[in-house]
Amino acid sequence: MAEMKIVALAGGVGGAKLADGLAQVLQPDQLTIVVNTADDFKHLGLRISPDLDTVCYTLAGLANPDTGWGRDNETWNVFTQLKQMGMPDWFQLGDSDLATHIVRTTRLNAGWSLSQITEDFCRLWGIRFQILPMSDQVIQTQVYCDDGVLEFQEYFVHRKCVPVVKGFNFMGIENSTPAPGVINAIEKADAVVICPSNPWVSIDPILSIPKIQAAIKEHLVIAISPIVGSRTIKGPAAKMFTELGIEPSAFAVAQHYGSIIDGFIIDNSDDELVGKIDNLGIRIYTTDIVMHDQKDRGRLAAEVINQINSWEKVM
Amino acid sequence: MAEMKIVALAGGVGGAKLADGLAQVLQPDQLTIVVNTADDFKHLGLRISPDLDTVCYTLAGLANPDTGWGRDNETWNVFTQLKQMGMPDWFQLGDSDLATHIVRTTRLNAGWSLSQITEDFCRLWGIRFQILPMSDQVIQTQVYCDDGVLEFQEYFVHRKCVPVVKGFNFMGIENSTPAPGVINAIEKADAVVICPSNPWVSIDPILSIPKIQAAIKEHLVIAISPIVGSRTIKGPAAKMFTELGIEPSAFAVAQHYGSIIDGFIIDNSDDELVGKIDNLGIRIYTTDIVMHDQKDRGRLAAEVINQINSWEKVM
Repeated sequence: MAEMKIVALAGGVGGAKLADGLAQVLQPDQLTIVVNTADDFKHLGLRISPDLDTVCYTLAGLANPDTGWGRDNETWNVFTQLKQMGMPDWFQLGDSDLATHIVRTTRLNAGWSLSQITEDFCRLWGIRFQILPMSDQVIQTQVYCDDGVLEFQEYFVHRKCVPVVKGFNFMGIENSTPAPGVINAIEKADAVVICPSNPWVSIDPILSIPKIQAAIKEHLVIAISPIVGSRTIKGPAAKMFTELGIEPSAFAVAQHYGSIIDGFIIDNSDDELVGKIDNLGIRIYTTDIVMHDQKDRGRLAAEVINQINSWEKVM
Repeated sequence: MAEMKIVALAGGVGGAKLADGLAQVLQPDQLTIVVNTADDFKHLGLRISPDLDTVCYTLAGLANPDTGWGRDNETWNVFTQLKQMGMPDWFQLGDSDLATHIVRTTRLNAGWSLSQITEDFCRLWGIRFQILPMSDQVIQTQVYCDDGVLEFQEYFVHRKCVPVVKGFNFMGIENSTPAPGVINAIEKADAVVICPSNPWVSIDPILSIPKIQAAIKEHLVIAISPIVGSRTIKGPAAKMFTELGIEPSAFAVAQHYGSIIDGFIIDNSDDELVGKIDNLGIRIYTTDIVMHDQKDRGRLAAEVINQINSWEKVM
């Protein structure tokens, strides 16, 4: 474990929690976190990167522990004014969070890349681990719904995931390249960990970048299920499976990732799925995967690392 | 006075004070305030219109009474974060003020004109008087200094008016047109009032828009001096006169406006300048022109209106 190098692929809240756990049990040079940016959008002229912010705030100890997104001890003065001035209020912008978006937008306009900006934020916030956007290019998740095509945040936040999903498109993904450092980190990694994030809209965009897809093939890839029983721990993943005609379960997630993953970690309560997942040719481990607190994150991360060690030996 | 129509030309603090006084003694259909926008600039991706904001905040009763600019009861949460994140802090951005800039920038990006945005702000803030930007086009004051050419806010706020001034250029002014409503208001006006704003950088830009210059020629134009004794009431006007080789005084201001103005109002303490100004062919009136409080504003505005009435009769 002392020399093991890990690349974690993460979306928002669930991904941030496991990334935080991995940061508890690994040294800075052992962990690179690659974060989904296909949720990024422009709002009130500001470039917002929800998953990057959630991961950075979480690792910096600045995240709101109640919501899982946004900043702790947040104030809402500007947002209150904006609402009074008739601006859209479906996407909440706390004062400290707003500063992040203003700095990001200013830097992007000045020619910085998203990965340079993220590196600067990590330095500012004392994060010693490498956090990389999946790409410096603009890639945008479109959600095909029964009532039309929606931008991801429009679907996720504004429409509260109510529209029935028919499919997804990651605009710009075909010609996209990973951010600097991503491929290098994967090449040096002993394993790639797919965090318990939404497979459809958090992990699939990362895995759809052609060079990332190619690079991870050479590696041990293990995933942690974002679904326990038939429900998502947080977010619309289970609802998406159902609407796409698939019964939501950890098995459905394993099947979704298919040959991409070598190992899969599910919750103890999903014990009856072990045989089915094993039949897919995927190694399986069960434990308590729900992270209620900081301690759970570190404990689960340590189990993930142990499992990588044991699976590495037999592969 | 009941039917008199006035167009006031205004810059920032001094202009806002007299405009506020005029709003105390006139009905909404009697007063249009045309505001300098050559100080406008982009900062942290936001379009900031300092003079328009000062005039609007003042007339809305939202202005900070101590500074004359910015909002009353302001908070600084975002600005504090921005500073901590290493952003430039020479231009202060309160939370409520920031909301104004975000809304303005968002609306401009959505294709609104500055005058449409200003009209919307007036409606939101309960301002019943018409406030118009001098132009919807981008016009930018450049300050020629001993150490180079500076953008106005760079000179005024960042460099605190320290560099020695050699001249001014209003970039874009030659082909600029007044904002919708400006010429119509001037045509209907009984008099144009040049508020006690900086002649060089607040009033000259307005007067340099070709169609405004032409339109006011047909009208009684009176100015109120921004200089008392050899000092500006607020701001760098006196310093500018000195650096341009002109002894600063109300007389120098009268001479600067020259044939543009028909009447000039100076402070009682400058009584000895009456003869010299009269010799320029400009009618002259002395009173207490320093506006310490709300009451002073209304009192001076009423005297301005009376003077217009008396000067109108003899012209």
